[in-house]
Amino acid sequence: MRIEVISTVDEVMIEHIKHKTVIVIDVLRASSTIATALAHGATKVIPVDTIGQANLFRQEGYLLAGERYGKKVIGFPFTNSPIEMTQAPLKGNALVLTTTNGTRAIQKSWKAASTLIGSFLNSNACAQLAMQLKRDLTILCAGSRQQFSFEDGLCAGYIVSLIEAQVPHLFVNDLGKTLSAAYRYVDEHLPAVLKTSAAGKRLVQSGQEDDVAYCAQKDIYSFVPTLVEDAIIIPADPF
Amino acid sequence: MRIEVISTVDEVMIEHIKHKTVIVIDVLRASSTIATALAHGATKVIPVDTIGQANLFRQEGYLLAGERYGKKVIGFPFTNSPIEMTQAPLKGNALVLTTTNGTRAIQKSWKAASTLIGSFLNSNACAQLAMQLKRDLTILCAGSRQQFSFEDGLCAGYIVSLIEAQVPHLFVNDLGKTLSAAYRYVDEHLPAVLKTSAAGKRLVQSGQEDDVAYCAQKDIYSFVPTLVEDAIIIPADPF
Repeated sequence: MRIEVISTVDEVMIEHIKHKTVIVIDVLRASSTIATALAHGATKVIPVDTIGQANLFRQEGYLLAGERYGKKVIGFPFTNSPIEMTQAPLKGNALVLTTTNGTRAIQKSWKAASTLIGSFLNSNACAQLAMQLKRDLTILCAGSRQQFSFEDGLCAGYIVSLIEAQVPHLFVNDLGKTLSAAYRYVDEHLPAVLKTSAAGKRLVQSGQEDDVAYCAQKDIYSFVPTLVEDAIIIPADPF
Repeated sequence: MRIEVISTVDEVMIEHIKHKTVIVIDVLRASSTIATALAHGATKVIPVDTIGQANLFRQEGYLLAGERYGKKVIGFPFTNSPIEMTQAPLKGNALVLTTTNGTRAIQKSWKAASTLIGSFLNSNACAQLAMQLKRDLTILCAGSRQQFSFEDGLCAGYIVSLIEAQVPHLFVNDLGKTLSAAYRYVDEHLPAVLKTSAAGKRLVQSGQEDDVAYCAQKDIYSFVPTLVEDAIIIPADPF
């Protein structure tokens, strides 16, 4: 098995995607929001690139959620907040989500053999499923504003460390090795560390510190949101 | 003070360089070779991009050293090996060096306020000088084959960790924070860890394991090779 970690969505190339299992990570907050929405009863989450595309779904009764550079989108009932998802009327409803980076990273992974959505909330489930799928794995850190994000890298490092513990003769690229070491160093201080990242600081400054703390929880969900055609669902059979 | 770490030479932009102190890191092996050559009596090291440019210096009596993708350049007396530099007749001579990535990274930093050459061999000297220079700092990891290199990242992380220990209210970008954590995790196992990187493995496989061990030594030199016009020297006055 080979693991390649890609530092930002801008660096991904077709060879990282094709015939691979891809885990897309946007800890703050798209990946965490998607997992939380599905855990709280949403039937599916449709990731779209633009606000215009999201609005097209409104007439069909979909719930709209999203943000642009951390700010609310006018006319959308929900932002890109996982805590908001725990209180939203999601049961039996589909959610349309558009965010600055996370949904773009998912779009870029469309051609993967499997596209999984990873966050600290479900890292162990992602790692176990990636091993069961027995393909080479690309972990795509969404990043923020074209830059590598500390929190996405640490989550990638956590997933790498879980697989390293179980798979002998594993190839991990240099970035993956680095992130595994970084994760192991900060492991016990994750909630505090996440607040020091660029995205974490912005959320703290805009009064959304609770979201950062929520996203720092490890493995509270044991399912893996998976892209099936154009929607992210909890598949009955992940194979 | 702000520290931005850049993961590969391909990502560097003019705003990372202009009016900044730049530390260029190519642990395996250009940065380590340059420091070692100067420590063993070379008057200066001239970094050039191409083998053709290097050959132009031959008639003027310069010693030529270099490699392409880890292999010897035909007609050059020396490769890009720091251990070779410890035995070469360098005293009083100038060295011309061309390597696959390291010299390119130095060329890209030409317009910095100060361009320093960093490796594990002199990380502490680099960190101290960067603090004394009191400008914002860019640490440019050369990388290898357009990819981020584990060993360059760990050396950048070591330099960041040294400055973090001394400077309050420091801004460090997300990659710098990640690398500082990764370095702190592997610190005590550096010689073993360097052999596991992509470049480290290639050197071990080609029988140059001793060079990897040599480059994993921390702070054996207390000077900072510095680019002055077109040559790297040990400046009498680093300001």
